[in-house]
Amino acid sequence: MKFVIIGGDAAGMSAASRAKRNDGALEVTVLEMTHDVSYSACGMPYNIADASRDMDDLVVRGAEVFREKQGIDLRTGHRVVKIDRDGRSVHGVTVDGAEFSVRYDSLLIATGASPVLPKIDGADLPGVMALKSLDDGRRLKAFIDAGVRKAVIIGMGYIALEMCEALHGRGVAVSLVKPRPAFLPWMHPGMADLVSAEVEAGGAAMHPGHDIERIDSEGGLLRVRCSGGLVLDADLVVVAIGVKPNSGLAEDAGLSLGPAGAVAVDGLCRSSDPDIFSAGDCADAFHVVTGGRTWIPLALRANRAGWAVADNVTGGRVELAGVAGTAVFKVFGLQIARTGLGVREAEEAGFDPAEVMIESTSRGYRHPGGTPVHVQMVGDKRTGRLLGAQLVGKESAAHRVNAAAVALHQKMTVEAFSQCDLGYAPPFGPTWDPLLIAANQLRKLL
Amino acid sequence: MKFVIIGGDAAGMSAASRAKRNDGALEVTVLEMTHDVSYSACGMPYNIADASRDMDDLVVRGAEVFREKQGIDLRTGHRVVKIDRDGRSVHGVTVDGAEFSVRYDSLLIATGASPVLPKIDGADLPGVMALKSLDDGRRLKAFIDAGVRKAVIIGMGYIALEMCEALHGRGVAVSLVKPRPAFLPWMHPGMADLVSAEVEAGGAAMHPGHDIERIDSEGGLLRVRCSGGLVLDADLVVVAIGVKPNSGLAEDAGLSLGPAGAVAVDGLCRSSDPDIFSAGDCADAFHVVTGGRTWIPLALRANRAGWAVADNVTGGRVELAGVAGTAVFKVFGLQIARTGLGVREAEEAGFDPAEVMIESTSRGYRHPGGTPVHVQMVGDKRTGRLLGAQLVGKESAAHRVNAAAVALHQKMTVEAFSQCDLGYAPPFGPTWDPLLIAANQLRKLL
Repeated sequence: MKFVIIGGDAAGMSAASRAKRNDGALEVTVLEMTHDVSYSACGMPYNIADASRDMDDLVVRGAEVFREKQGIDLRTGHRVVKIDRDGRSVHGVTVDGAEFSVRYDSLLIATGASPVLPKIDGADLPGVMALKSLDDGRRLKAFIDAGVRKAVIIGMGYIALEMCEALHGRGVAVSLVKPRPAFLPWMHPGMADLVSAEVEAGGAAMHPGHDIERIDSEGGLLRVRCSGGLVLDADLVVVAIGVKPNSGLAEDAGLSLGPAGAVAVDGLCRSSDPDIFSAGDCADAFHVVTGGRTWIPLALRANRAGWAVADNVTGGRVELAGVAGTAVFKVFGLQIARTGLGVREAEEAGFDPAEVMIESTSRGYRHPGGTPVHVQMVGDKRTGRLLGAQLVGKESAAHRVNAAAVALHQKMTVEAFSQCDLGYAPPFGPTWDPLLIAANQLRKLL
Repeated sequence: MKFVIIGGDAAGMSAASRAKRNDGALEVTVLEMTHDVSYSACGMPYNIADASRDMDDLVVRGAEVFREKQGIDLRTGHRVVKIDRDGRSVHGVTVDGAEFSVRYDSLLIATGASPVLPKIDGADLPGVMALKSLDDGRRLKAFIDAGVRKAVIIGMGYIALEMCEALHGRGVAVSLVKPRPAFLPWMHPGMADLVSAEVEAGGAAMHPGHDIERIDSEGGLLRVRCSGGLVLDADLVVVAIGVKPNSGLAEDAGLSLGPAGAVAVDGLCRSSDPDIFSAGDCADAFHVVTGGRTWIPLALRANRAGWAVADNVTGGRVELAGVAGTAVFKVFGLQIARTGLGVREAEEAGFDPAEVMIESTSRGYRHPGGTPVHVQMVGDKRTGRLLGAQLVGKESAAHRVNAAAVALHQKMTVEAFSQCDLGYAPPFGPTWDPLLIAANQLRKLL
């Protein structure tokens, strides 16, 4: 039995390791186009923030460990260019230009995602960079180390905001610009305002609502020209306007695609060809709230799907429950968390949503150090179901969201969730947890 | 309609306020034996820790607000001594010695709990104190303010540990002593060891496994004489060996009692007399894991049950889901959290438990500032159900436990819980949340 994996990042290497642990006799081949495998991609902004850290300290396990200790046929510098489903084989070229072919019994497409790059003049200038691979991180960090005073970040999503904080921590003046006028458009506007106020208080200049027209290189500076006459000068331009699934191989092979063009998979992580699995940022997933397909590329799902594929390839049967869209991030002193659907997403999914936003505190009554915790919560008027929650606060917001995520997996009503016995002690929150306060308010609207 | 409430603390005042909000025409009478209502009892150790704070800053709402703004007939200094169920009335004496009687249509017993006091000589000496009412707090704080160098705390539960930290913060040398040899006997021993190490590192001396034989007053010092020849000198002795429900009135009136002698109530918080409700620390509850009755006196349940009674008295029908036994506390730098059942409790409830304890981290791979997070998790071998979880760590433990609590409410299997989409970002935890790591391990044993 031969299990071939295209892509050696979170999903691919999770699958390779687990498959080999499950069945030592299985031949496992990983074809990775870069020379890096198994690193903490999400840790890159935090690594960049600290000049004393080596970018390579994010490598969790070196290639030699996979090869020698685990017996995985790991081939880096191998780019697959074609999947031949009839011949059950993949074909590609190495970094040295040599062609290769590998036969498979089971195939995993774990090719990840790539940054979306703006189709403008100057996007390929030196000093215009995106952050996805570890090599991107190395290049970006070396560039900053060489001396950057001003940076423009194109985009205002969570990677943009993490990079904003990282660059600010390195003494770089940061401006953020993006075409859409709404900052964090998935978020309750009142809560998005809290986050933008935090970013501005951190010293970054924010310019939403400006199309990026071109980037020029003038007098040793990059000049980002935007609509409305906005011109932003910088030594460094970071592009962080989103990612797209690397599903070209799958598409060329005739496999079905799902939302955003991600590889469509079933609960077993199988594509439309039962011998071909897909996992990680290139694959879609079922959403536990809507029941429909969604594409939310995040690290936990990638690892979990990698394991599920390994188990399914080695004779098990693991059906994944799906994702709730739980995501957390930090920007300066604020924690931002979400799970499930916002109001617009809920409407688009056919629900009849009601929403509340409440302000509570992170600690008990008059307990020293307490700070505001803002909670938004969405429920469905027809069924009473909890549909989503968002939290913003200086402490506890990121960990509190998980209680709501579990409730979404269970399709709980807001009423049932409001009855949950959550923990209370003065250092950790008010008697009624902020989520329960929101649920109590939301109940009245359902 | 006349709604009479015995006890003006969390459950009683929650019920009074909400009942009056629900139905402005309802006559609501609260009979409280002390002169304090509506204060944050759980905040007392933290208030005591800070010499600059007034104990009365824990009062959330003064009696006059309830009387004048809310129209509640709040009578402090009124101790009820008898419930006459046939006559639908209660009888008592005021703090001035005057007798009173009040007729009711619906009655709420919200008499709370009292500290268990050791039946030993010297338990009534000046300087031997327990902490339950706000007056207890005032007395204890005034005593410390007057000069205490050494304190002995009898007991090692969460109030004892919170008081240990509070006294330590005031520069008082603290010894803890208790009869049972096991520290935090409900906890996984490996995790209890982590907590006791933290307490000892904080500078407190711990003496488990010593019966307390007598307390003497000698030469201006209190001398706590224990089994095994242990003698502990102190200026102050704090008794914190637990609480018992104040259910004497209910018992005398012939109402059914539940575990620990608490007033037995149904999901509507009704006692065995349908016109008499009970809520707060004097009443029992159903446990969402076992389905049976339990007595776990905590503030959230008291508030929630007070509201439910108010709704049920004013024509609604609110059935409470029960408690999961979720509890969190802090001692020095450690957060301790639990929900559901430990192994012994699971066995006693008829489950066939398996248990894991894992060590994870509070932040992502190599993220600065990460500290260990220890998770214990219990599942049932017969059904695969999640039965309980415990966490100990310097950060995030207290808030993480809530995800498991929601799972217990939903009777989730460990397998289903392990599939939950919990949040991940490097500042807040590893890719696999510590609870998921524990669930993944525990699954293998079920």
